[in-house]
Amino acid sequence: MRIGTVLGFRRGTQGSGGVTCAFVSRRLQSPKGEFEFLRRLLPQLPRGREMVVGPGHDAARVRVWGGEWLLTVDAQTEGVHFRLPWLSLPTLGRRSFRVAASDISAMGGTPRFALVDCGVPRDVSLDAVYKMELSLMREAAAWGATIVGGNLHRAQELSISITVVGDAPKRRLDRGGARPGDLVLVSGPLGDSALAVHLLSRGKECPPALLRRWQLPPRRDELGRRLAQRGFATAMIDLSDGLAQDLSHICVESSVGAEVFASKIPLSRPYRRYSGGDLSFALAGGEDYELLFTAPPKRLEAICKAASAVGCEVHVVGHVVRGRGVVVRDAAGKEIDLRTAGFDHFARR
Amino acid sequence: MRIGTVLGFRRGTQGSGGVTCAFVSRRLQSPKGEFEFLRRLLPQLPRGREMVVGPGHDAARVRVWGGEWLLTVDAQTEGVHFRLPWLSLPTLGRRSFRVAASDISAMGGTPRFALVDCGVPRDVSLDAVYKMELSLMREAAAWGATIVGGNLHRAQELSISITVVGDAPKRRLDRGGARPGDLVLVSGPLGDSALAVHLLSRGKECPPALLRRWQLPPRRDELGRRLAQRGFATAMIDLSDGLAQDLSHICVESSVGAEVFASKIPLSRPYRRYSGGDLSFALAGGEDYELLFTAPPKRLEAICKAASAVGCEVHVVGHVVRGRGVVVRDAAGKEIDLRTAGFDHFARR
Repeated sequence: MRIGTVLGFRRGTQGSGGVTCAFVSRRLQSPKGEFEFLRRLLPQLPRGREMVVGPGHDAARVRVWGGEWLLTVDAQTEGVHFRLPWLSLPTLGRRSFRVAASDISAMGGTPRFALVDCGVPRDVSLDAVYKMELSLMREAAAWGATIVGGNLHRAQELSISITVVGDAPKRRLDRGGARPGDLVLVSGPLGDSALAVHLLSRGKECPPALLRRWQLPPRRDELGRRLAQRGFATAMIDLSDGLAQDLSHICVESSVGAEVFASKIPLSRPYRRYSGGDLSFALAGGEDYELLFTAPPKRLEAICKAASAVGCEVHVVGHVVRGRGVVVRDAAGKEIDLRTAGFDHFARR
Repeated sequence: MRIGTVLGFRRGTQGSGGVTCAFVSRRLQSPKGEFEFLRRLLPQLPRGREMVVGPGHDAARVRVWGGEWLLTVDAQTEGVHFRLPWLSLPTLGRRSFRVAASDISAMGGTPRFALVDCGVPRDVSLDAVYKMELSLMREAAAWGATIVGGNLHRAQELSISITVVGDAPKRRLDRGGARPGDLVLVSGPLGDSALAVHLLSRGKECPPALLRRWQLPPRRDELGRRLAQRGFATAMIDLSDGLAQDLSHICVESSVGAEVFASKIPLSRPYRRYSGGDLSFALAGGEDYELLFTAPPKRLEAICKAASAVGCEVHVVGHVVRGRGVVVRDAAGKEIDLRTAGFDHFARR
């Protein structure tokens, strides 16, 4: 997950969410520092005619030669986004591409080209880097994208920064279209990834099914494309920072509020078994890379069919309301305060 | 300068050149390791129909919607490409953009969009990063480009990775078109930047004029565009790794050889004064970011006029010959062996 922020297109997606806080300075992560940074920087960003979608979305949408492209950049850094014992370098290559490409999926686009900048510490061999790059290249090819450029340099920790250029769908889909009455949906079970990192970073047993979810986030490009092309979804974002926070970005950009029902959040069997009933990883953990989107109730059947056709499930977890902010309710309808109900390990970051 | 290499589009531009060797591991820099890495990786790169220019050039050239784009990525990392006492953070922002955009200039293109990934260590404040990003943004705007995306994350050393997307010129211009009989030209004095780093890294006095050349590489986008659009140049590259090495890339891609006359290499007054007669910085130092190009002799007058119109000089430093490799000759016409004649501090890297 990204801990920082965002020039331009990631207002709020980055920063305060995530589970790898233990080894990240609080200074950069503190919402105050981040929001202050963005409050000052965003108004300075020029927004020319060719920029169709500006600050506050997963990727930039730019117009060129009558067509439109999506552009995004994301990085994975050792000690911040991952620890080397948690995955092989080839898997890191694949993970890095999936995480970066997820922003294109969240805009309903199709990754076409990617560029990779890689920082390599002294104790990592070129052979290992070669295998990582090859694996990344194959992952990109599986998505229909080509690695067209790269750079490799010495650094103190291993890092991979990936820029992805994608085709934009004809219908514009971003965070700004949610309307009161819309349903709030997610494309798969939440929390596995955050729970895996929680267990691993504390040296506890982590079942392979959870670890795999963190290592290789799901591909949701095909679902994203269908939701965009057919006009099913009204707003969309990828779940990188946790349901509560990412939904709040949709709410801010759409000028609406939302209610989420904790009991409706889809959870995997290993999550139920290893979380000890703690919902916080599913609600605020981050790094799920599922799609979070809103849609009118009348579209639900068509959406379920579209999801089923591409081999994934969708789950209604709440609805959009007038007003502001995200409210999470328990089974009795009572509001859950994310800052007190077992969510301390996230809120304090 | 980039010490590593290259996925795809930088075969040989990166890696073995440069002046910041003192604080870079030799393992990644060793030509053997790098060339072996590339020898294995490049054949794996898919080259679809949309890829017009592939491995071995400054930027990728891809075809989309009947138009063509240039894509490149480059990074500046603390302790590898720069040291913080050598420049302010706002200047680092400008420098980073210029270095990355230089690859677009070298293909005759125009930077249009850029994405910035920034790694920030604990001891750098968000305020300082803000000023750096703002400066970078303004530099991009001065080139006619817009920063459309970014990412900020914690890291052990300060690093900026910039992806630049540019319009490609209609006439294709890259490293592969040099022909025997062509002149070899450069767009300005060489060696200042490398000499500055040499002096700084040894704690010696460095005159501001030399330091400034390193801090802010020249803009050659307008010259590059004219050379490409009018079909004046037959091959072009930006001087990031030193005249000898970058010219050898043109020779390899064009299947030709070249002769360079050391006495014809343009040198600045501060270079003459502070180099102690050592030509190695001008010949093999790197980070000049001037254009190096080849052109038929009959185009010389028109080229001089075009350069003059955009406020820069061009200098003939040699010519293209049949055969292979780059030969550098002294005033008496005798071949200079770059590995022995005072070039040890480069050759050993």
